[in-house]
Amino acid sequence: MTGNVSQPAFVLVRPQMGENIGAAARAMWNFGLDRMRLVAPRDGWPNPAADAMASGAGRLLDEAQLFPDLPDAVGDCTYVMATTARSRDLTKPVLSPERAMRVAAERIAEGQKVAVLFGPERAGLENEDIARANAIVSVPVNPGFASLNLAQCVLLTAYEWRRQTQHVQVEMTEPGTAGWATGQEVEKLAMHYEQRLDGAGFFFPDTKAASMKVNLRNLWSRMPLTTADVQMLHGIMRQMVRWKERGE
Amino acid sequence: MTGNVSQPAFVLVRPQMGENIGAAARAMWNFGLDRMRLVAPRDGWPNPAADAMASGAGRLLDEAQLFPDLPDAVGDCTYVMATTARSRDLTKPVLSPERAMRVAAERIAEGQKVAVLFGPERAGLENEDIARANAIVSVPVNPGFASLNLAQCVLLTAYEWRRQTQHVQVEMTEPGTAGWATGQEVEKLAMHYEQRLDGAGFFFPDTKAASMKVNLRNLWSRMPLTTADVQMLHGIMRQMVRWKERGE
Repeated sequence: MTGNVSQPAFVLVRPQMGENIGAAARAMWNFGLDRMRLVAPRDGWPNPAADAMASGAGRLLDEAQLFPDLPDAVGDCTYVMATTARSRDLTKPVLSPERAMRVAAERIAEGQKVAVLFGPERAGLENEDIARANAIVSVPVNPGFASLNLAQCVLLTAYEWRRQTQHVQVEMTEPGTAGWATGQEVEKLAMHYEQRLDGAGFFFPDTKAASMKVNLRNLWSRMPLTTADVQMLHGIMRQMVRWKERGE
Repeated sequence: MTGNVSQPAFVLVRPQMGENIGAAARAMWNFGLDRMRLVAPRDGWPNPAADAMASGAGRLLDEAQLFPDLPDAVGDCTYVMATTARSRDLTKPVLSPERAMRVAAERIAEGQKVAVLFGPERAGLENEDIARANAIVSVPVNPGFASLNLAQCVLLTAYEWRRQTQHVQVEMTEPGTAGWATGQEVEKLAMHYEQRLDGAGFFFPDTKAASMKVNLRNLWSRMPLTTADVQMLHGIMRQMVRWKERGE
């Protein structure tokens, strides 16, 4: 996102059918949203089937930003929300679309960059994707019948964006002079800890390593970290390594 | 509608494609609505294409009430709302979906029978249809791009019905089975880090040590930590100390 960002980016993560990407573009543009990001669309990009379906909202596809993976796609974002249908075991705030878009509007008004993630058609987002988000957005569907498709999930979220931004009240949170950490900063912090803790034998036994890593990553992304916090946490780890290396 | 009616009837007026009728059924059932009425569907009734599309919500089609014309279809209703995309010259209250479903819920609670009309795919409702309604429902779409299809219009209205009638807890954070960390637990965590980091020479130079300690303590207390998080953070520090003491 560049310059004066006044709306969230909608990030389609590994979308499958071009038709659904086009339908998602239309759904967004119905409610005035036009910042689409795409992570590794299955059938490549550009996609003629997406263009055909998007009629009238084709500009969103022309301007869509393409990324090879999710960390890249949200690297410049300070607040990331993941839409999910099923409930997950990850400890994160679960927001209704209404609440989520109010939070998005408030954060954007503060100058933050917000992204909303939408998973692939069949399975939705992986836990690994969700671990990178600060919060979960869940549409309160009939527990006995949840069958929203990708464009419908985009539609409801975009609708709530419009509803919330027609009369937003801004609640300021003070991140300090350094501001909120970006997704990229949190990603680097997560990598730093993961590498050093790997070296120190923290992820043990091997059978548990993967889930321990997801939990740790989930911890960082769930915390409301400022840039100053991130620097302090880097400093802590660097100091422990120095201390060990001095071998006193 | 019969007996204790606790929801509005959604009336599809002269729908064209069976697929769209099936998609509308799914959209309704996603939000717990199951009273569908059909006025003169173009391709007759029942419609195999509708059944194929409705998968999982087929019961709504089996139970749908069929009428030859609109006056018949809303003959038993005391309050009728007409959804429209374009603005009309008719002098009637124009409600947002939100407001419309609140009104519907209030009237239904009073024992009234409420219907919501949805027009044919291409042209929408005729002025003659709208003249039979007590109010107009209009989705606040982008004035430059209004392209909601039938099922999407049904979806947004059904979503608002659910939102207005279900007082869901909108923001829940699931702290996991272990629950939120207590103040005492956070205090112990802060002490643990402070002692170890002191030993490792983190609080340097001395003149800055006090304010660094305050910042670190502030970081822990500002984070929404669960008991599991606290244990992981203890584990990280313990492991770094072990790694150093092994002196590899």
